[in-house]
Amino acid sequence: MEFYPVSIEKLIEEFAKLPGIGHKSAQRLALHVLNLPKEEVEEFAHALVKARGTIKYCSVCGNYTDSDPCAICGNPNRDKGTICVVEQPKDIIAMEKVREYNGAYHVLHGTISPMAGRGPEDIKLRELIKRINGDIKEIIVATNPNIEGEATAMYISKILKPLGVKVTRIAHGIPVGGDLDYADEVTLSKALEGRREI
Amino acid sequence: MEFYPVSIEKLIEEFAKLPGIGHKSAQRLALHVLNLPKEEVEEFAHALVKARGTIKYCSVCGNYTDSDPCAICGNPNRDKGTICVVEQPKDIIAMEKVREYNGAYHVLHGTISPMAGRGPEDIKLRELIKRINGDIKEIIVATNPNIEGEATAMYISKILKPLGVKVTRIAHGIPVGGDLDYADEVTLSKALEGRREI
Repeated sequence: MEFYPVSIEKLIEEFAKLPGIGHKSAQRLALHVLNLPKEEVEEFAHALVKARGTIKYCSVCGNYTDSDPCAICGNPNRDKGTICVVEQPKDIIAMEKVREYNGAYHVLHGTISPMAGRGPEDIKLRELIKRINGDIKEIIVATNPNIEGEATAMYISKILKPLGVKVTRIAHGIPVGGDLDYADEVTLSKALEGRREI
Repeated sequence: MEFYPVSIEKLIEEFAKLPGIGHKSAQRLALHVLNLPKEEVEEFAHALVKARGTIKYCSVCGNYTDSDPCAICGNPNRDKGTICVVEQPKDIIAMEKVREYNGAYHVLHGTISPMAGRGPEDIKLRELIKRINGDIKEIIVATNPNIEGEATAMYISKILKPLGVKVTRIAHGIPVGGDLDYADEVTLSKALEGRREI
């Protein structure tokens, strides 16, 4: 019984380590790579090593950056008096795509989750508290609207309010283009609760 | 509006070039890579370059190999009088997993497909014909049981039979563990046609 040559097996194994890639997909990807021009494969390999090698976390907000402070923290046109707190760097990208927020960010790199054994000291909460001073007008908590995200938001609010800073939470409700009929009860109840005069 | 640093964007772009990986998955994979230990990323990059750099096609059968001829063609214990014709190198792996076939292989690297403008000269058919000599007892055509695979099998049979070589086709029928009720009509008709006395 013969299998693939060692170097193909190794590549399949490497692809299979990636999240959401099973053995069959890994095989497909590896065989695809073998059919690519050599330069393209080298470019891919280079991109991997370069991204991992040059990317660090911004010492102010915790976002991915290749210069410190990051482009947002270093931008004098952005309002440093408002900090939007998110779970992950990718949430910053989602917020930036809206093109409406012009404040600063803070990345927690996780959530508080007693179930998973993650407490407040396991996320970048201390770093957030250190940023609070008289110039900070508002902290917008934009953690995800699930149990862990809500728990984290509650905790942040409880910690920061005594420091005299305004803490807000992004609104929950029916997504635009969504259907009342398909909304779950919790979302619908949040949508009712957050109703505004028109 | 800020996006990811250039090196992350580049890595996302590289992942998105892979088949079946959309932009969202590419982003997820790239961010996963950033959280891996540096050595693991370098190992992945090395596996990519090495597989692409060392793998070539066997000059006899067209399978992937790192030595020429490949491990199967170079194995004196395998029956070189029987050649199993497959579409792709991965089909050899599938056949080998059965552990019942001990002959040689020939990889066509494609199928004849008039619809896609691929004729007999676009696959490794000439190479197959060159391998036919007095020692070859049987050619087993194991192209996929779809329109293109069938057309290719028919064509191969038409070309090789005049050379006095026995050409066979793998059986079509109900898969083991399958359900008659769910089989399509063509498969069922093939299963009937290929019935054998028990």
